[in-house]
Amino acid sequence: MAADPLKNIRVVLCETAHPGNIGAAARALKTMGLAQLFLVAPERYPDPQAEWLAVGATDVLRRAHVCASLDEALAGSAFTVACTARPREVAVPMVAAREAAARIVEVARTQSVALVFGNETYGLTAAEVGKCQLLATIPADPKFSSLNVAAAVQVLAYELRLAAWGATVRNRSGEPPEHATHEEIERFYEQLERSLLEAGFLNPRNPKKLMARLRRLFGRTQLEQEEVNILRGVIKTLAHPKKKQQR
Amino acid sequence: MAADPLKNIRVVLCETAHPGNIGAAARALKTMGLAQLFLVAPERYPDPQAEWLAVGATDVLRRAHVCASLDEALAGSAFTVACTARPREVAVPMVAAREAAARIVEVARTQSVALVFGNETYGLTAAEVGKCQLLATIPADPKFSSLNVAAAVQVLAYELRLAAWGATVRNRSGEPPEHATHEEIERFYEQLERSLLEAGFLNPRNPKKLMARLRRLFGRTQLEQEEVNILRGVIKTLAHPKKKQQR
Repeated sequence: MAADPLKNIRVVLCETAHPGNIGAAARALKTMGLAQLFLVAPERYPDPQAEWLAVGATDVLRRAHVCASLDEALAGSAFTVACTARPREVAVPMVAAREAAARIVEVARTQSVALVFGNETYGLTAAEVGKCQLLATIPADPKFSSLNVAAAVQVLAYELRLAAWGATVRNRSGEPPEHATHEEIERFYEQLERSLLEAGFLNPRNPKKLMARLRRLFGRTQLEQEEVNILRGVIKTLAHPKKKQQR
Repeated sequence: MAADPLKNIRVVLCETAHPGNIGAAARALKTMGLAQLFLVAPERYPDPQAEWLAVGATDVLRRAHVCASLDEALAGSAFTVACTARPREVAVPMVAAREAAARIVEVARTQSVALVFGNETYGLTAAEVGKCQLLATIPADPKFSSLNVAAAVQVLAYELRLAAWGATVRNRSGEPPEHATHEEIERFYEQLERSLLEAGFLNPRNPKKLMARLRRLFGRTQLEQEEVNILRGVIKTLAHPKKKQQR
C-alpha cells in the first residue's frame, strides 16, 4: 500500500520491435516518477540502443521484467488498462488518457495497476485488449493519430503524475511567488501618478485617463511583491536621479 | 485568423543535435494537428534519421523552416513561450504546461504564437529564454526531470490539442455512445428480478437485497442502449432457453 500511487503502476510494453523505444519509454517513466517496466516478448532486449535512449534511466531499464506472455505481465494487477489509438470492436469501454489516469491513480493508491502498450506496427491484438478492463486513448488528429509508442508512454505517464500530484510548479526557491497586496500596488500607482504629474507627462486636468491605461497594463500581470519594489525604485530613481541627489 | 488555433502555433527547436529528435518532433506535432516546425541552426538537417523517425509526418518535416537565429524564428509571433525543465534566474514568469497551453491557444485564435525548445544537452540559454514572454514547464520528478526534447514536444502538443479541442473521445462509429435511458434500465432490472425470482435465485421474502447489489454493479457502468438490449437478450435466453422453446 504505497504512499506514492505511481509506485503501484506498472507499464507493460508488448512485443516492442525497436529497442530504442524501450529505452525512451524507460526515460519517459522515470521523468514522471514511475519505475516499473514490464516487457512482453521484446524483439531485442537488452540492447545498446535501448541503453543509449534511456539516458539517465538505465536503472529503470535494467530492472525491467521480461515476460513470455501478457498474462504473466498482468499477474497481480487489480486494474488493467490498454492504451490504443484505434477505436476497437471489442466490448471494453474507452476513455481519454486524462480520465484513464484519474481512474488508474485512484486504484493505485491501494492496489497494483497495469497500463499496456502494443507493438509499434500492429498495436495490441483483440485478445490482448480483451484481457484489459479499460481502453485509454490519447486524443489526436483523426487524420494522423499514430503516436510513437514511447511518446504515448510519455503522455500517459505525464497524466498519471498530474493525477497523482497535481500540476503545481515551483519557482527557483521552491516557494510560490509572493504576490503584491492591493495596498502595495495602490501605493505604487500613487507614486507613479505623482511622479508623472511632476514630470509633466500627465494632463493635470485629466490625469486619470492615462493612469487607467497603465493600471490595465499592470493589472494583467499579477505583480509580485519584489516586482513592485523594483518598479517603485525605478520610478524614484527616474524622478530623482541619484546623480542629482548627490550634487 | 485561422479557425483552427493549432494552425497559428509554430514550434521552434533550437540547435537540435540529433536529427532523430527533429523527426520525432515532427511526428509528435502532426499527431496533435500542428504543422509549423522551425529549426534554429540544427546540427544535421535534412538527414535520413530524421525522415525515419518522422514516419508519416515527413510532410511536416520537409516543410520545416530553417533559421539562422531565434529572432528569425520568432519574427511575426505575438506571444512567445519557452519550454524548460529548469527553474530559471531570469525574470520570466513560469507556469505548468497545461496552463501555458490554455494561454497559447487563447492568443492563437487570432495571432501567431511560438513555442520554443532548447538543445538536448544544454537547453535554452538565458538570452534565448529572455526573448520569450512566458516559461512553460512540464511537471516532472524533481530527481530526474529531463525529458527527451521530442517527448516534451509531444506533451506540449497534446496539451495544446486538448486546450483547443477538448478531451473528447469518439467510439468506432464516430458518434458518442447512446446511453440507456432510466426507463430502459428499469425495465432491464424488472426483467432480471422476475427471472431470478422464477429461477429461485432470490429470496422471495427479501428479493430487494440482492437486487440492490446488482443495481450498484450495473449503476457504475453507465450502460449503453445496445448493452441493455444485449443483457435483456441474455436473461431471456437463460430463463427460456431456445432449445426448450423449440421443443
